[in-house]
Amino acid sequence: MTYIADDIVCEAPAGRIEGAVAYRAFMTPFVAMLKSTTMLATFGDESTALIMYDTSTTLVPSAPGAELLTVAAGRITHSRFLFDRLPFDQARRA
Amino acid sequence: MTYIADDIVCEAPAGRIEGAVAYRAFMTPFVAMLKSTTMLATFGDESTALIMYDTSTTLVPSAPGAELLTVAAGRITHSRFLFDRLPFDQARRA
Repeated sequence: MTYIADDIVCEAPAGRIEGAVAYRAFMTPFVAMLKSTTMLATFGDESTALIMYDTSTTLVPSAPGAELLTVAAGRITHSRFLFDRLPFDQARRA
Repeated sequence: MTYIADDIVCEAPAGRIEGAVAYRAFMTPFVAMLKSTTMLATFGDESTALIMYDTSTTLVPSAPGAELLTVAAGRITHSRFLFDRLPFDQARRA
């Protein structure tokens, strides 16, 4: 959480998350099932980063994600977060 | 299709699509429901582009996507394509 701004806003597939406490609560279940991450591409400039990665999780073997990050004063203040929720939904229903 | 290589490989959420004919068949239903696109970020270098955009479709009001594109000789030869299938799945079930 070192690089997460206290007032981070994350626009995730399920909706808007505001603040580091809520962001941590949102990420914790995902991190708990995370087995590995492979970075596919990273780009950025002074204030923005755009990354795409693949992850392997205990629930879904390949779960790629993309994030458009805004950085200010060395911390992430905004994250537009994208991943495919369908395989997670299907795995939970199975 | 001007910028699509004949032998494009697209790694989409639902699986691997090979060749321009299959890629066109894959994209056609999406394009038919597309109302508008807003580019959120574009980065790239000599051979790679990473983009994130939001789309509005007749089925899902906000459907963001990200693409990691490999370009050779002015055409897209590889696309790692990411979007959230869940709202489309839910809309089709409703």
